[in-house]
Amino acid sequence: MDSITECTEFPVKFNEVDSLSIVWHGHYVRYFEDGREAFGEKYALRYLDIFNAGFTAPVVNIQCDYKRPLRYGDRVKVETTFVDDLAAKIRFNYVLSNPVTGEIIAKGSTVQVFLDKDTELLQLTTPAFFNDWKKRHLYNHL
Amino acid sequence: MDSITECTEFPVKFNEVDSLSIVWHGHYVRYFEDGREAFGEKYALRYLDIFNAGFTAPVVNIQCDYKRPLRYGDRVKVETTFVDDLAAKIRFNYVLSNPVTGEIIAKGSTVQVFLDKDTELLQLTTPAFFNDWKKRHLYNHL
Amino acid sequence: MDSITECTEFPVKFNEVDSLSIVWHGHYVRYFEDGREAFGEKYALRYLDIFNAGFTAPVVNIQCDYKRPLRYGDRVKVETTFVDDLAAKIRFNYVLSNPVTGEIIAKGSTVQVFLDKDTELLQLTTPAFFNDWKKRHLYNHL
Amino acid sequence: MDSITECTEFPVKFNEVDSLSIVWHGHYVRYFEDGREAFGEKYALRYLDIFNAGFTAPVVNIQCDYKRPLRYGDRVKVETTFVDDLAAKIRFNYVLSNPVTGEIIAKGSTVQVFLDKDTELLQLTTPAFFNDWKKRHLYNHL
Repeated sequence: MDSITECTEFPVKFNEVDSLSIVWHGHYVRYFEDGREAFGEKYALRYLDIFNAGFTAPVVNIQCDYKRPLRYGDRVKVETTFVDDLAAKIRFNYVLSNPVTGEIIAKGSTVQVFLDKDTELLQLTTPAFFNDWKKRHLYNHL
Repeated sequence: MDSITECTEFPVKFNEVDSLSIVWHGHYVRYFEDGREAFGEKYALRYLDIFNAGFTAPVVNIQCDYKRPLRYGDRVKVETTFVDDLAAKIRFNYVLSNPVTGEIIAKGSTVQVFLDKDTELLQLTTPAFFNDWKKRHLYNHL
Repeated sequence: MDSITECTEFPVKFNEVDSLSIVWHGHYVRYFEDGREAFGEKYALRYLDIFNAGFTAPVVNIQCDYKRPLRYGDRVKVETTFVDDLAAKIRFNYVLSNPVTGEIIAKGSTVQVFLDKDTELLQLTTPAFFNDWKKRHLYNHL
Repeated sequence: MDSITECTEFPVKFNEVDSLSIVWHGHYVRYFEDGREAFGEKYALRYLDIFNAGFTAPVVNIQCDYKRPLRYGDRVKVETTFVDDLAAKIRFNYVLSNPVTGEIIAKGSTVQVFLDKDTELLQLTTPAFFNDWKKRHLYNHL
């Protein structure tokens, strides 16, 4: 297995909708983070878990393709998929959909790197805690 | 003199306007902070100045009366007035107006207290640095 | 009965926490709106319900007292209480607490008025739909 | 000439900084929009201009590479470059830098399409107003 997926779902909020009556595109970055948090909660990979292991994990790349608009009253389903990477990176793919109609709303991805939480030095090799995490969650069926 | 006022001005942003085509009321809290920052920049009372003096200054009360809506295309003028307080508090009043028409958009206020930045203990007496600040900026014409 | 209360609960999000490691005070306005939305969902008083009745209901006053900080990892409980008002207004009180410790985090209130959705005219008397709503939900035990 | 660039500059705001003491990555989407608005102000291509021409222009793709962190106290310079595209799209590239040190903070891009503002139909050919705009601003030195 080289990927794991976790889902979360929530309603669009009034304050996320812009004057075109659709969710402002910038809020999707928060939806991605909501997906990542739900994943992290399930698989012990939240910012706090990473911090407690001695690292921070800033986002260094984000991409999003917007397929259909979201409106106030809609619900959003976020499927967050962890994709294994040989480099010292955390890579997630996201699929946002309307849970009622099943229509795809957006697809995107983020890449995070590891910094030592004290020195802020970029980690060029995968931290031991993260290799352990992969063994436990990703390779446990090998 | 028991008050000082500083002004700043900026355009409404597209992403601040909600589906009623007016600025979402929550963004006024940021406008207040923009006003406070402009004041702090002019009078050396930014978060960083307070932090460097050994304190943080969290907001403990906020109030806002909304008089007229703001729309995309409008500009906002924020008048931020520091009001002296005998207690160990930072008190600001805000007047938001349309700089073109002069119409009042909103009025509000914030109150901040001082916490020791390390112990997080609430300061019951005004910190020395802030008494000095008042002498320099508020009582300098005495 | 002259009030109704509804509760909702959610975790603090990473992106809501500021550099003092506490939730930035402006986000509480969204927490109030989350509470109001949960209330509206339960009692058919969402923005959409009001809009479908022919009105918009902008917030004209907000107040918040911050009692204790919220941190990443905390959960927030929002108790939203509708308080009856003889004037043509919607009045809510909010109590934010930590659902684990029971500690009060903040208390606040909002006041909304009714505008005709087409003419944007302020309604000086309570709209018929809202009197009906009160009869159904607030006075139903009389 | 197949591109035009406009610059804008502003300070990092306190409420944009997260608990890692750096600007939360999601705020860069607003920085891009700030850059686009400054460009649109200069070259008459704001959301309002597009709307008055009969269209909306939702963002359908966004990408961002984060190179260095931004901190409270920093200023940000946004260079927004319009890149000509034969398709019915608006394409912008963004370079964020520290105006004091000149260091690159981030690079990104957005793509927008045109929808008829009434029917919401996707425009497959470049709207006449936008061809005129290009002639005026982009090809005026031919």
